[in-house]
Amino acid sequence: MNLLLLQPEDLGTNPNRITLSDARTDHIRNVLRANLGDTLKVGLLNGPSGNATITAISGSKVSLEFELHTPPPAKLPLTVLLALPRPKMARRIIRAATELGAADIILLNSYRVEKSYWQSPLVSDDTLHKAMLEGLEQAGDTVLPRLSRAKRFKPFVEDELPSLLENKIGLLAHPYAEQSPPQAIKQDCVLAIGPEGGFIPYECEKLIAAGMQSFSLGPRILKTETAVSTLIGRLFL
Amino acid sequence: MNLLLLQPEDLGTNPNRITLSDARTDHIRNVLRANLGDTLKVGLLNGPSGNATITAISGSKVSLEFELHTPPPAKLPLTVLLALPRPKMARRIIRAATELGAADIILLNSYRVEKSYWQSPLVSDDTLHKAMLEGLEQAGDTVLPRLSRAKRFKPFVEDELPSLLENKIGLLAHPYAEQSPPQAIKQDCVLAIGPEGGFIPYECEKLIAAGMQSFSLGPRILKTETAVSTLIGRLFL
Repeated sequence: MNLLLLQPEDLGTNPNRITLSDARTDHIRNVLRANLGDTLKVGLLNGPSGNATITAISGSKVSLEFELHTPPPAKLPLTVLLALPRPKMARRIIRAATELGAADIILLNSYRVEKSYWQSPLVSDDTLHKAMLEGLEQAGDTVLPRLSRAKRFKPFVEDELPSLLENKIGLLAHPYAEQSPPQAIKQDCVLAIGPEGGFIPYECEKLIAAGMQSFSLGPRILKTETAVSTLIGRLFL
Repeated sequence: MNLLLLQPEDLGTNPNRITLSDARTDHIRNVLRANLGDTLKVGLLNGPSGNATITAISGSKVSLEFELHTPPPAKLPLTVLLALPRPKMARRIIRAATELGAADIILLNSYRVEKSYWQSPLVSDDTLHKAMLEGLEQAGDTVLPRLSRAKRFKPFVEDELPSLLENKIGLLAHPYAEQSPPQAIKQDCVLAIGPEGGFIPYECEKLIAAGMQSFSLGPRILKTETAVSTLIGRLFL
């Protein structure tokens, strides 16, 4: 954790002081090993960040005094359109996409997404919200990506994707495509990443008909998490 | 697992048939859910790969018949020079670097690497060998990266790194550098990635004196694993 996130409801009447008594105090004491007088970076969820000084530390309480004036790092102009991953993997992928600065994440159904995945507590709003908070705390960001779910492939791709792609480049990672991905693009981008085993041909056709271009990731088959990070590096780093 | 790796010692007198009775049979039966007559991709460690047909499956045994004729995917001309990560994280980072095709991985000591890390069973040769096998099985590769350890920073950087950098570009990911990383390079590259908290200034100076160029990863602080994948995407995808 490189930034301690404060929730708006943490702040009382004094916007520059806070006393924490939850799991964050454990982290401050036992992971950061911070002491009285030390400074650490804090940020207000969806707001500015700054340095905090520890003004009291005892038992399970930590008091901080801070000024929040630094704006969060810019988001990437990127929507990750992600076939719902195996639930065990979803948390880590969402966390990495958040860490890297994706502005929007859309979880999409696909033929190869098992129906039970959508019901898993590992992909609940609450679990994925926590994963995004972890990504923000890692990266030093404060602004949550917008996370949404498209549980029906065809209506989403036919009715919503074309307008989403207006003034954006749409890229579809596809193992059997011929083209390499573009690099260091400046424009807004929707990046579609399939499930394990890939989108089925019908789905690829529909995505391309909606305006996406397919490209190859090369001869190696990458884990979804690796593919997301590698592609963001290629497109935006 | 996208490729079943066979060890040279698995092969008996017939180089085109094998009967497995170890953990790999569980994977074939329970994860791949393969049946008699199905094909799956197999590869010989450090050798060619090809398709195998299941010729018998019963109890805890699976018999395969195969032809191995496809060469492994090319490695990236990349040496990852990695400050020894927190042991819990090391396995995953090494697996991802293998999956992406790094040819060489050197684990380096640094001021911010806790001495105890080197003793952890989570970074033993055996554990990291298994992590590399997992990376190969994911990517469809058969060739292990060369993994080595530089447990003394100064002798390595002064005496070995300059000759390692001959005819290679040396890149040092450094949070406070000004330059962006180059993109889509064609040449051989040594990519140095620091520990949590980064290399200390003295170490950066020594790395630069040995011929490395520093560059910034931007305002976000990335997990080592994310940084490795993102940078490889930027440099090589």
